[in-house]
Amino acid sequence: MLLSRYLLPVMKETPADAQIVSHQLMLRAGLIRQTAAGIYAWLPLGLRVLDRIADIVRREQNRAGAVELLMPTIQSADLWRQSGRYDAYGPEMLRFQDRGGREMLYGPTNEEMITSIFRDCVKSYRDLPRTLYHIQWKFRDEVRPRFGVMRGREFLMKDAYSFDMDEEGGRASYDAQFTAYLRTFAALGLRAVPVRAPTGPIGGDLSHEFHILADTGESEVFYDSALDAVDLTDPDAPATLRGLYAMEAEEHEKVVNCPVPPERLAKRRGIEVGHIFFFGTKYSAAMGMQVQAKDGSLVNPLMGSYGVGVSRLMGAIIEASHDSAGIVWPDSVAPFDVGLINLRVDDAACSEAAHALQAKLEAAGLSVLHDDRDARGGEKFATMDLIGLPWAITIGPKGVAAGTVELKRRATGEKHEVSFESVLAKLIP
Amino acid sequence: MLLSRYLLPVMKETPADAQIVSHQLMLRAGLIRQTAAGIYAWLPLGLRVLDRIADIVRREQNRAGAVELLMPTIQSADLWRQSGRYDAYGPEMLRFQDRGGREMLYGPTNEEMITSIFRDCVKSYRDLPRTLYHIQWKFRDEVRPRFGVMRGREFLMKDAYSFDMDEEGGRASYDAQFTAYLRTFAALGLRAVPVRAPTGPIGGDLSHEFHILADTGESEVFYDSALDAVDLTDPDAPATLRGLYAMEAEEHEKVVNCPVPPERLAKRRGIEVGHIFFFGTKYSAAMGMQVQAKDGSLVNPLMGSYGVGVSRLMGAIIEASHDSAGIVWPDSVAPFDVGLINLRVDDAACSEAAHALQAKLEAAGLSVLHDDRDARGGEKFATMDLIGLPWAITIGPKGVAAGTVELKRRATGEKHEVSFESVLAKLIP
Repeated sequence: MLLSRYLLPVMKETPADAQIVSHQLMLRAGLIRQTAAGIYAWLPLGLRVLDRIADIVRREQNRAGAVELLMPTIQSADLWRQSGRYDAYGPEMLRFQDRGGREMLYGPTNEEMITSIFRDCVKSYRDLPRTLYHIQWKFRDEVRPRFGVMRGREFLMKDAYSFDMDEEGGRASYDAQFTAYLRTFAALGLRAVPVRAPTGPIGGDLSHEFHILADTGESEVFYDSALDAVDLTDPDAPATLRGLYAMEAEEHEKVVNCPVPPERLAKRRGIEVGHIFFFGTKYSAAMGMQVQAKDGSLVNPLMGSYGVGVSRLMGAIIEASHDSAGIVWPDSVAPFDVGLINLRVDDAACSEAAHALQAKLEAAGLSVLHDDRDARGGEKFATMDLIGLPWAITIGPKGVAAGTVELKRRATGEKHEVSFESVLAKLIP
Repeated sequence: MLLSRYLLPVMKETPADAQIVSHQLMLRAGLIRQTAAGIYAWLPLGLRVLDRIADIVRREQNRAGAVELLMPTIQSADLWRQSGRYDAYGPEMLRFQDRGGREMLYGPTNEEMITSIFRDCVKSYRDLPRTLYHIQWKFRDEVRPRFGVMRGREFLMKDAYSFDMDEEGGRASYDAQFTAYLRTFAALGLRAVPVRAPTGPIGGDLSHEFHILADTGESEVFYDSALDAVDLTDPDAPATLRGLYAMEAEEHEKVVNCPVPPERLAKRRGIEVGHIFFFGTKYSAAMGMQVQAKDGSLVNPLMGSYGVGVSRLMGAIIEASHDSAGIVWPDSVAPFDVGLINLRVDDAACSEAAHALQAKLEAAGLSVLHDDRDARGGEKFATMDLIGLPWAITIGPKGVAAGTVELKRRATGEKHEVSFESVLAKLIP
């Protein structure tokens, strides 16, 4: 991609209304623009990151055996009356009437709708267990939207729903999602703490929140610091983590005898990025969803729901990975793999070399943002540091004469002169 | 994908409330379920097709140099007051108040929002021309939603917007989209007729609609039958097509001297799947969007907008490609490349062969839906015909003993016995 044909409105100044660093950097790096309170447009660079995060979430859902579908954003109030939640849900639910006067809402979550679809489509135990998910925009009418995409009103969420014939199966589905969440966060370059959570208005008896540790987090987490040493890629990690104490402050304060000795009890701020629940027959019973069991009897399937804030994750990643010059994207979600700076677009040899290198890298499957603008070197370097691509390659007249380019790793700042021929091998070892 | 772990609720009966064949088949083949009037959930099979259609639209937009971003679904009424359209737009616009009493709406289109974003981000002629697009859910509160996804209320649309410094540039951007549309429809296996259109409430002086010819279409199109002979893959096709007469009935009737001799004038029903406009400074002037020209003066960029009904296209494709047994997906959008039928899941040799073949095809990059259910052969064949995958492979005990499978091409019904070893080569020639 040529930057001269892209839309990347970076800002030098820190926007006054952005309080936390991820919000500041998302605005400054041209990832998002606010279009109304708590509502954002995703500019081209931001959308690329959002798509990559969603793809990682999707990959781990598929790996866990969940099946993707897509439910609409607008729901009928009648559906929510079947579960009794229409009146119970607070003013965060955006309610309105359509032109025919029918009461509708913009879905803040989809338990009712998926239960109704499953009720309509599935009649037999043969079609269970099943976990279904979608990645769709949600709306929650926050009274004070803040912190950019961290607490926005329109946001992208992955929500999965499991259906099982019995308690044992339901808990296995819950465990599969628990594991998928750990894998997802690890793939995003994040360290997540699973915190035992109260089940709240969704109901049920088993629930975990996943918090990314960050000083700017809205939550406060107390946990057994043995957790910090768990290798998340270990197959036993889910079981180990669930055995270790971790509680949000409010719940921790209710605990009379904390099982963790004081010297091992860590206290950190966190950003909640996921929440999973097992709530049994709460919705299947309320909404009359039954399937026929092997013995011919009719049973209410046991359900769980599993949410991840996909757009919020972008903020969490930036909170966890930035420096004074800008964002430092993990390789797995970077909007482009490589930033290619041509220092002298008026020099034919430099431009030829830059275009040739872009073509070579793209042919090898790398994504490249090529800064071919007529601008000063200092501005180009600052932009590349701000937008945080994993690698920057700089092409200038001296290097072209010598057959070399400068290769810089954003995360470490390390720079090397490498030959034009060997640069690809450095990027794809 | 194993069908035993998927969600594919096919129906034997034709739903009474579905009037046109695409709506009937989308329900019967388990692609969609209605969740409210004119609002649908996309079941797993339907979502796969929707994603493939969107990917083809995206590929051709990118090829034409358009840059993808993503605007939110919810917009503020204030934005629409800037263009004067808030009061002018009809009751199809879904309007409501948020919890703070602010007037909001669910975007039916995005001219105002993209103009506001461009106004905010772009100040100089150096950043023009630019065409930006997004693929996002829209809502139009149709008084009589009907024909399934053809005239739904919540629908997926690609809308692009071009910004140019002068009329000549604006027309070039329009031409690039015109060409991208022809390429898009051709890649989807569709024959589209570009029809000169009145500009209507969006305004401007140049506009075309693209109609897919189908007997169940809502529109009636008169056109020069020389159009039928144009090779859409010819680089000159856009220019040729724009030179040939084509009008919707309502406009055709206003034409006093039709330039086409009666014997060459064709009359067919059509489904409108795209609409493009060049409207100059209508929005940039009304909303005060200016950029600095090379000579230092401030100018209002000239704009165009370009819409494609992504979800409607699925209906149009089915209208254009089905038979009495079900859907016949073009290869480019089929939800799976291959349907694999195991006739005897209780036979160890059959099951082993089926799983081995699935693995082999998937390793070669093909997507496979493997019917491993404990069901009768007749039911499995009927399901495969109904859902219309390009290829069906049947594995049974006799074939396994002989080392062969049956390979069937859905579009032609042709069947061949082929060896287990050669089947892959038949699918990827």
